[in-house]
Amino acid sequence: MSGLAVAIVSGGMDSVALAYDLASQHYDLHLVTLDYGQRHRKEIGYAVRCAGQLGARHTVVDLTSMAPLLKGSALTDDIEVPEGHYAAPNMAATVVPNRNAVMLAIAYAGAVAEGAAIVAAGMHAGDHPIYPDCRPEFIKAFASMEVVATEGHAPPNLELYTPWLNVTKGDIVKRGEGLGVPWAETWSCYKGLDLHCGECGTCYERKEAFEEAVVADPTEYMK
Amino acid sequence: MSGLAVAIVSGGMDSVALAYDLASQHYDLHLVTLDYGQRHRKEIGYAVRCAGQLGARHTVVDLTSMAPLLKGSALTDDIEVPEGHYAAPNMAATVVPNRNAVMLAIAYAGAVAEGAAIVAAGMHAGDHPIYPDCRPEFIKAFASMEVVATEGHAPPNLELYTPWLNVTKGDIVKRGEGLGVPWAETWSCYKGLDLHCGECGTCYERKEAFEEAVVADPTEYMK
Repeated sequence: MSGLAVAIVSGGMDSVALAYDLASQHYDLHLVTLDYGQRHRKEIGYAVRCAGQLGARHTVVDLTSMAPLLKGSALTDDIEVPEGHYAAPNMAATVVPNRNAVMLAIAYAGAVAEGAAIVAAGMHAGDHPIYPDCRPEFIKAFASMEVVATEGHAPPNLELYTPWLNVTKGDIVKRGEGLGVPWAETWSCYKGLDLHCGECGTCYERKEAFEEAVVADPTEYMK
Repeated sequence: MSGLAVAIVSGGMDSVALAYDLASQHYDLHLVTLDYGQRHRKEIGYAVRCAGQLGARHTVVDLTSMAPLLKGSALTDDIEVPEGHYAAPNMAATVVPNRNAVMLAIAYAGAVAEGAAIVAAGMHAGDHPIYPDCRPEFIKAFASMEVVATEGHAPPNLELYTPWLNVTKGDIVKRGEGLGVPWAETWSCYKGLDLHCGECGTCYERKEAFEEAVVADPTEYMK
């Protein structure tokens, strides 16, 4: 055993691949999923499956009571989900403000309480243009803040592990193939219908990742 | 109006005094209370009263689903609450790991979503010895991290306002007297019985604050 890893897993491709990466390194796993009222609750079910497949403990933290604080995000209210390419400026409407700071702070709480070796999260390079809290500068600032916040309480050398931080989603697919990630058991689509819609920003991004990796995409899309 | 303040208010003396301080500066107020499964839920009722008295919006964020992540804290599980002076080493058992990072990250989410002028929190100098996340170094690190986390999304000059950071609880009582803080409508005791127990660390600290300020203590204690 490499010690305990507290890993943020949404049920999407990147975080499920992260969990498989950690399992391949023989970490004891506690997966944490945040339910912040996103419209596609389907994703959470895929996080549950991932935990089951890996024999990991799993905690879903219900943050839906934050809703009165969060306004103006297409993921949590009634603004229409933008279609088209993910990197387009209108996708900025899908930002939940400060989401990753909230997620990581909660994961660190668990990591300190349980004496974990690492906190792990699946941000990747493709997220940098629109999400400031997916950038290397943020990860560095957050880890430094936590050293101060948990002084005298955190296990020694508690590390913030973000292996996808500087790689593309295509690279994640390539690496995940070697780890046996069951891609069909991950969810990307912001719409949360029975199948992936094939038209929203995250569906575009998902398709492109498989193309870039030259890996067959097992996803059934509506279009 | 001075703009919107998103203020973390637990219902204790320090944070209620903070809310009155903000009201005296004519901020529009959104109070945020975190329910992290503390045993003395009474405190939350005092936060509700504070919001009512000040005509503030109030959101209680329910974090009780974090419980499986949090272990070893006397505030959230069945470990006996330590008696005696607050600063004694055994009070470290009351630390909820990383609590203030979680609280502040949630408050920042609201502040960014609503375009607030400030995020406010009531840490004070008396908390520094046992709680690393109440120290000036933490506040500075957290505010710096949030500049990076919310780049391009936060309102300009969003400030982290912690007026009690370098003053004692006695000083807070002195200042709060001038602001008309209704001390009897605040709660400190960790035990959460009908009256303040008068024996736990926070009751000691409460009594000492009134003594230090030379202000009559309106609290009815069991002992």
